[in-house]
Amino acid sequence: MPRFTEFETYDVRFPTSLDLDGSDAMNADPDYSAAYLILRTDTGDGLEGHGFAFTIGRGNDVQTAAIEALRDHIVGLDVDAVLGDLGGFWKSLVHDSQLRWLGPEKGVMHMAIGAVVNAVWDLAAKRAGVPLWKLLSDLSPEQIVDLVDFRYLTDALTREEALEILYAAVPGRAEREKALRERGYPAYTTSPGWLGYDDAKLVRLCHEAVADGFTQIKLKVGADLDDDIRRLRLAREAVGPDIRIAIDANQRWDVADAIDWIKALTPYDVWWVEEPTSPDDILGHAAIARAIAPVRVATGEHVQNRVVFKQLLQAESLSFVQIDSARVAGVNENIAILLLAAKFGVPVCPHAGGVGLCELVQHLSMFDLVAVSGSTESRVIEYVDHLHEHFLDPVVIKDGHYVAPTRPGFSAELDAETLCDFRYPNGKIWTDLEKESAK
Amino acid sequence: MPRFTEFETYDVRFPTSLDLDGSDAMNADPDYSAAYLILRTDTGDGLEGHGFAFTIGRGNDVQTAAIEALRDHIVGLDVDAVLGDLGGFWKSLVHDSQLRWLGPEKGVMHMAIGAVVNAVWDLAAKRAGVPLWKLLSDLSPEQIVDLVDFRYLTDALTREEALEILYAAVPGRAEREKALRERGYPAYTTSPGWLGYDDAKLVRLCHEAVADGFTQIKLKVGADLDDDIRRLRLAREAVGPDIRIAIDANQRWDVADAIDWIKALTPYDVWWVEEPTSPDDILGHAAIARAIAPVRVATGEHVQNRVVFKQLLQAESLSFVQIDSARVAGVNENIAILLLAAKFGVPVCPHAGGVGLCELVQHLSMFDLVAVSGSTESRVIEYVDHLHEHFLDPVVIKDGHYVAPTRPGFSAELDAETLCDFRYPNGKIWTDLEKESAK
Repeated sequence: MPRFTEFETYDVRFPTSLDLDGSDAMNADPDYSAAYLILRTDTGDGLEGHGFAFTIGRGNDVQTAAIEALRDHIVGLDVDAVLGDLGGFWKSLVHDSQLRWLGPEKGVMHMAIGAVVNAVWDLAAKRAGVPLWKLLSDLSPEQIVDLVDFRYLTDALTREEALEILYAAVPGRAEREKALRERGYPAYTTSPGWLGYDDAKLVRLCHEAVADGFTQIKLKVGADLDDDIRRLRLAREAVGPDIRIAIDANQRWDVADAIDWIKALTPYDVWWVEEPTSPDDILGHAAIARAIAPVRVATGEHVQNRVVFKQLLQAESLSFVQIDSARVAGVNENIAILLLAAKFGVPVCPHAGGVGLCELVQHLSMFDLVAVSGSTESRVIEYVDHLHEHFLDPVVIKDGHYVAPTRPGFSAELDAETLCDFRYPNGKIWTDLEKESAK
Repeated sequence: MPRFTEFETYDVRFPTSLDLDGSDAMNADPDYSAAYLILRTDTGDGLEGHGFAFTIGRGNDVQTAAIEALRDHIVGLDVDAVLGDLGGFWKSLVHDSQLRWLGPEKGVMHMAIGAVVNAVWDLAAKRAGVPLWKLLSDLSPEQIVDLVDFRYLTDALTREEALEILYAAVPGRAEREKALRERGYPAYTTSPGWLGYDDAKLVRLCHEAVADGFTQIKLKVGADLDDDIRRLRLAREAVGPDIRIAIDANQRWDVADAIDWIKALTPYDVWWVEEPTSPDDILGHAAIARAIAPVRVATGEHVQNRVVFKQLLQAESLSFVQIDSARVAGVNENIAILLLAAKFGVPVCPHAGGVGLCELVQHLSMFDLVAVSGSTESRVIEYVDHLHEHFLDPVVIKDGHYVAPTRPGFSAELDAETLCDFRYPNGKIWTDLEKESAK
């Protein structure tokens, strides 16, 4: 009987703070990092499962330790049994009564579960010989709902309602898959808008974004209102009236501040405002959403789990659901969130960027298109042009669209050299930086 | 200039699962544990700061690693500067932009901050030569609000409103302190009601609780409805009609299940139902609270931070706020929560038990009585009679009341021998258990 035999973790960090890539009102100097996992089996096919949690530097060691704490939850298990019941496997991790105390279902421990679950899905797709989006899209509605834990969701979404949504999407699957393979999935770009970039760089990158075929860009805001107004005006002049401009405050405001600040920016035709306040503040988001209409609220990259997404939808706190591939407990929980969004008729526009978040989350949106919501209406996946070169199957953007991956797996695999060079603190990149700073 | 010099962490675990102490519907076999911290300085007074996060076994190593990740946030700092601005120190931990990504403000990383913050408060009280409750109770209203981070709270509680609450309590401080020293603070006991205990043990412990002067007990429920009805009936017969019986479902139910189950138990005169569903489900708690009235909802031991408590109060999701001394980011954040509860006029009835949670949280309720809410009306602190013998300043219960501590500090200090013997996995208790199980 083939078993999971190896569980290898890596603390990988990229010194992105040197260039202020990724800088925003709350995250001044992130070092984009991955707490990274490789799973191996003794099946003899040489296939591995890769998964990771994304962090922004300090604490990536804690995140790696949390993944390590799950070693005994998979090493030694029968590979076919795990892959044959990925809903049950998910529960065996999330419902571990002792580990549950550390959340429950939130923060470091929950993200660690996400890394393990995603690594297993990477392996599952490689064994099936298809990209993850295709593996998921070919499951039956029953197989899909079996992946979902409906605990704490049934007041908003039952298994039966989820089946109805999925069955309604079955007839159009083939046609939408064909269209997806031809046109890809719409993207928007955040690359112009980092707070640490000067005006000239902002304007240059805005022009490039339009030339590259993007129809939506995003600007970071929230540090200084006058700066925001100037940057938004420059961006609007650069992209013209037909390109959507979203803004992102990265949780900078209290409720009243958010409302005032957003109203001051409304004249510049804002498509959505993202993370206006604490990701935990369901009622606060709802109050903001009511006050700033017709500007709409988007949130989700820091939303801890499906229970909070459920409430954001119930309270009409948001108009766009921003799933993240590595914040909640992996593919299974994101399927639950896609189903919740479909139930409430709210479009999913994933958060991406970071390390490998674009690579991962495209699969979830493509599955959503083929088998769940059946639509790309008002839906875009975030795109940030950092660090893709480190992945074996990097995202491909063409005319402002994500091209559907064809390589088997979850596109999660970092280059072996990168894993070695960027390992913290002893990889070459970091020891070189230390030598330099010692000069 | 005196500095923080040493930062020592311990993974301490007690094999409580052997006796099913602490067993409930979600936590079948907890091994009560502490991720423990000792802070030392070079002031030469020999005083140490002790603090910890409480977990229930697996993952205590991850929790300890998270505390370790904060070493550089305090070692080397000027002791007087830190103790002179504990509000600023709190923010330096919680607002660390890189570590914040791991929550934000929730789970393993947030509890780690709680351990560090509480250790510093333990030291502050020892240096002042008073128990923590007294140190806090003698602060001016301005000094108290300076400890609080109002970020994300101002739609429910502003600094000015907090000052008003605190000023209103100033005139009665001395009188209430005198009464507290004489009578103590009301307690209730959970010791009879663990789910793993048989009926005879339940009844015997119910009788003991009444004989010991408790006026409220609590029973774990949620595994099997017939069992719950039988146990509740037995308990009611044992304690008579005048003793309050609370029940605790430990997050077992979805919203509709909770309502049905609680309604079936209502004939047995239930004082409150605790944690009926996910601690993240603010709207779910509110729906349950509306449906089960006049039975009231209590929750909080797993509520991640002040932002969620704010919303539970705004949405009228609960009638009792159950703060926990080691779940949120320490004393400062609990002061924010006490102020929120006072603003909304909801009594605080702390969660305790575990390892040292009774020892810690009594200080917060006593401070609440003297300087914040000014009342013990409908307020009780949970009491569980486990593991106190391991503490240097264990709680003292007399006639169903917590006796006000007099020893300087936060009562947080574990016996040195315990720290050695129960250290996991190499302490004597654990190596002995391993030898035994190998036989």
